Parts: sequence; C-alpha cells; structure tokens
Amino acid sequence: MESLQRKASEWSGVAASDAFAIDETNLFETLGGIQPFVDLCTNFYTRVFDDEEEWFRSIFADSKKEDAIRNLYEFLVQRMGGPPLYSQRKGHPALIGRHRPFPVTHQAAERWLQHMQQALDTTSTIDPDSKIKMMNFFRHTAYFLVAGNEITRQGQGVLCKHATSEPAAVIRMVIKGLTSVACRAS
Amino acid sequence: MESLQRKASEWSGVAASDAFAIDETNLFETLGGIQPFVDLCTNFYTRVFDDEEEWFRSIFADSKKEDAIRNLYEFLVQRMGGPPLYSQRKGHPALIGRHRPFPVTHQAAERWLQHMQQALDTTSTIDPDSKIKMMNFFRHTAYFLVAGNEITRQGQGVLCKHATSEPAAVIRMVIKGLTSVACRAS
Repeated sequence: MESLQRKASEWSGVAASDAFAIDETNLFETLGGIQPFVDLCTNFYTRVFDDEEEWFRSIFADSKKEDAIRNLYEFLVQRMGGPPLYSQRKGHPALIGRHRPFPVTHQAAERWLQHMQQALDTTSTIDPDSKIKMMNFFRHTAYFLVAGNEITRQGQGVLCKHATSEPAAVIRMVIKGLTSVACRAS
Repeated sequence: MESLQRKASEWSGVAASDAFAIDETNLFETLGGIQPFVDLCTNFYTRVFDDEEEWFRSIFADSKKEDAIRNLYEFLVQRMGGPPLYSQRKGHPALIGRHRPFPVTHQAAERWLQHMQQALDTTSTIDPDSKIKMMNFFRHTAYFLVAGNEITRQGQGVLCKHATSEPAAVIRMVIKGLTSVACRAS
C-alpha cells in the first residue's frame, strides 16, 4: 500500500509535489466557481462517449453521460477548494474502491489522459497555469489508480465463498469432488 | 457503488448531512491547529494497541503504533480543513482501497468506534461541539468502510490470473484439464 504514491509518480512521471501543487492555491477560487469545472468535464466526457476506440468507450457503457459529468465535476470542485458537493451526495471519493469494477490499465489511463489533455486544451474558461496544475494532478492520479487497480486485482486470487481457504486448496477440493463424478460417468 | 452512502447511513444511524457537518465549519481552525488531532489519535491508538480483545488488536499487528497514529492524524487534519499532509506524503486517502487488506466487519467497526468514543471523551483539547461532529463523521465513515469492504470481497469471486473469464468457466477449464489426468491415472 505504501508504494501507491511511489508507483503513481514513477509511471506518470509526475512527482507527488507537482501532482498536489493543486493544494498550494485554491483552484476553485482562481477559476471563479463551478462553471469551468462543468465546462471541462462536459468537454471531456463528450470526447470519451464519442471515442472511436470501442474498448475504451465500452468502459463507460453502463454510465449515463450526464451522471459521469456530474460525478467528475463534483469531485474536482471538492478536491480543488470548492464546496464538498461530492461527499454530500455520494460520500467519500474512495477513488480506488469506486474504480474497482473498471479495467484501469496503463493503456486505459493513457487514453483517459489524452482525452483530458484535449479537453483542457479546448476549455477557454481555464487559465494556462491552472491547466498545468490540473494536468499534473490528473496524470499522477490516473497512475495512482492503475497501481490501485493492480493491488485490488492481486487480492482476487481467492474464491469468494471460500475466502478463508488457500486458492489451490479450493481448486483441489472442487476437482476432488467432480473428478469422482466425471470418472464414474465416463 | 451508489449505495455505499445509503448503507453507511442506514448501518451507522448517521445521516450523510450529519456525517459531513464537519464541512460546514473548519474544524482545524476551530481546534487551533494540529495538536488536538495528534492528542486524539495517540489516545485512540494507545487504546487499540492495548485492546484486551486479541481478534481486534491483531488487525493492527502489522503496523507500528507511531505510523498508525501519523496516518490517522494526517488524514483527519487534511479532511477537516487543515494542510494536505496526508496527500503530500501518501497520495489520495482512497479509504476503501487502503482498507482492503483488513476485515472491516460490523463488529470491527463497532469496536473501532468504542475506542474512538472513549478517546474523544478523554481528549481535553477538543471542545464538546467538535466532538459530536467528529463522532458523527467517524460513525458514518466506519460503516461506509464496512459497506466498501463487502463490495470489495464480493469482487473476489474471480480467479486472479483469469480475471477476464467467468469464474465458473475457469473452474470448468481447470476441472476439464485435470479430470482427464485423474481418470487416466486411476
């Protein structure tokens, strides 16, 4: 667990101090309120939901676009110095936990970041300095989630109903029961 | 995922609006800085590491007491309006992801909360109104993590190396390969 931050920096190329430079100022105040966040997230998810790459687009297939936009801008507003809209509605961000159902691979992180870079480039309500700060935060966070995703999936080497048993033992148990049937049947 | 907040409220008896009343004021400023947070967390973990219940104490067996204290007070300082000490050192709190290795059951949540209530009761540097706000936050958050823990463990019904396959299909695959050997051997 201790290495999440280290991995995020190594893979993203963004030092933690640069990623969390968003905390040195109040970006919500700098940007003048909620609208630039709504603009950015609408721009971003319009690109994501129109992505020509089906493998990436499909990650978001179970979400409504307007929900995805709201989840992201409420989180960003809260994280970047504005009112705690996200926690009031949904609770703790719990970034790794809430991304658990999705395949947050290096490849998916890069494509997410490409769309975000393009969205930032074309959102005129955000100033250049804030764009750099935000992109460093996004880059680091995307790879933080790749690291979190790998740790979460490592933990899946256990069968649910036998969570206290060693996986190999579970497989042996299943095999033992069923080979007996299979052999008798053959 | 949407039901994490709902479950947390239902199980804890604390409405989200009461849990996040910590955001209506700046508790870090109200308490006058970092020391009351250090006092509380030292008080809390002294109780936890001395718990007569081995099942609960053992959850923390792999942590050093001073690290546990620092992780908690840095998180609380950051979450309650102070400087972002936690993110600077460790990254996003990622509460569900970071609690994944631990058995965050209803029983464990209740014992954690008992120790925290006693720690709050005996920390003189925190005023009564702040204690109520903090306890509501702790209660709701503890059960948010119980809900997160249940969701995380549901996801473990998949074998790690075959994470893209349906579990039953993986078991069938293993059985098919090995019954063949077993039948020939018998």
